[in-house]
Amino acid sequence: MNYPTGIKKSHNVIINYSHRGMTLEDDINQTNKYYRDNDIAYIYKKPTPIKVTKVDFRKDRTSTIKEAFYEEPSTTDYNGIYKGFYIDFEAKETKNKTSFPLANIHKHQLKHLENIIRHGGIGFIVVRFSMLNETYLLKAEDLFSFTKSSQRKSIPRSYFKDKGKMLKESFRPRLDYLKVIDNFLEVKNNDKEKDK
Amino acid sequence: MNYPTGIKKSHNVIINYSHRGMTLEDDINQTNKYYRDNDIAYIYKKPTPIKVTKVDFRKDRTSTIKEAFYEEPSTTDYNGIYKGFYIDFEAKETKNKTSFPLANIHKHQLKHLENIIRHGGIGFIVVRFSMLNETYLLKAEDLFSFTKSSQRKSIPRSYFKDKGKMLKESFRPRLDYLKVIDNFLEVKNNDKEKDK
Repeated sequence: MNYPTGIKKSHNVIINYSHRGMTLEDDINQTNKYYRDNDIAYIYKKPTPIKVTKVDFRKDRTSTIKEAFYEEPSTTDYNGIYKGFYIDFEAKETKNKTSFPLANIHKHQLKHLENIIRHGGIGFIVVRFSMLNETYLLKAEDLFSFTKSSQRKSIPRSYFKDKGKMLKESFRPRLDYLKVIDNFLEVKNNDKEKDK
Repeated sequence: MNYPTGIKKSHNVIINYSHRGMTLEDDINQTNKYYRDNDIAYIYKKPTPIKVTKVDFRKDRTSTIKEAFYEEPSTTDYNGIYKGFYIDFEAKETKNKTSFPLANIHKHQLKHLENIIRHGGIGFIVVRFSMLNETYLLKAEDLFSFTKSSQRKSIPRSYFKDKGKMLKESFRPRLDYLKVIDNFLEVKNNDKEKDK
């Protein structure tokens, strides 16, 4: 489970110093902000689901939550709209240099991505091999080709190189993943034209 | 601001007994579950955004949040996919019998709905007049026709009757709002056919 960033120091609790997933998340959040600011796409990270059990309730909207627990997300972290298409994806970092362990993605998140593409949405995962500083976009279709033909519990980096697209970091936007989606939509449109 | 349901009793904090929005939210959540269970649509409520400031961190995934605050949502509460379309809406109850106060919806949520429909998504609001037990779906297009032509800070119930569609409650699904969207898509398709 990932914990949100920005957890502050306090005298009586242990602090979460784990920054796992922070950098990729930050890159994607900044990219999504760029897309919104430039009216390109409206894609947001969903808030982390939290079960609140105790609240110090005040009327002036400054209520303090006194006890709460992290819950497992039922869907992927990011979704939104681009060129009229429903976009849905999950982003993960791994320190592994040779493969991406599938345990990083919950089973119901995989199921969710399957549902999305079956209903005409665009689904994918963004995976960063953080020790190598390589980030790939892998379409859900290619992800499921792998999981349905292999018993392996991790996807080799070579599969990302072969079937995915490497995302280069740049200044603005930080991680232009919609450029890859543009290519995908072009192929889709060409296929449609051929069918006519 | 709405607080999530299921807040438990505790000895040292004041409890949130406000059930504002609970019933409509419950109806919509159950309807969305019905849509998912029957592979009709994948529409979810976004988790309430919460800023966590203190965590009692444990390795066994049972970390307890000791201090956190409710944040304003940047988008609407519900989004997902239906027949390949991006769906986005906000649901609100009002005790007012004659009109729906626009203050119930944040300005950036209205802006969000505007962005969504401009980019080809299907956006709407679901409003329940809880004292009358009447629930309406109003398309974002008609919502903005109102806000752009009127200085009024609330939408009269008559406008919902005139431009919106009343949603009848039933057993399964509880509130079949996608039936209204079907009519909308039919009109859209017919318009497209005419253009050819």
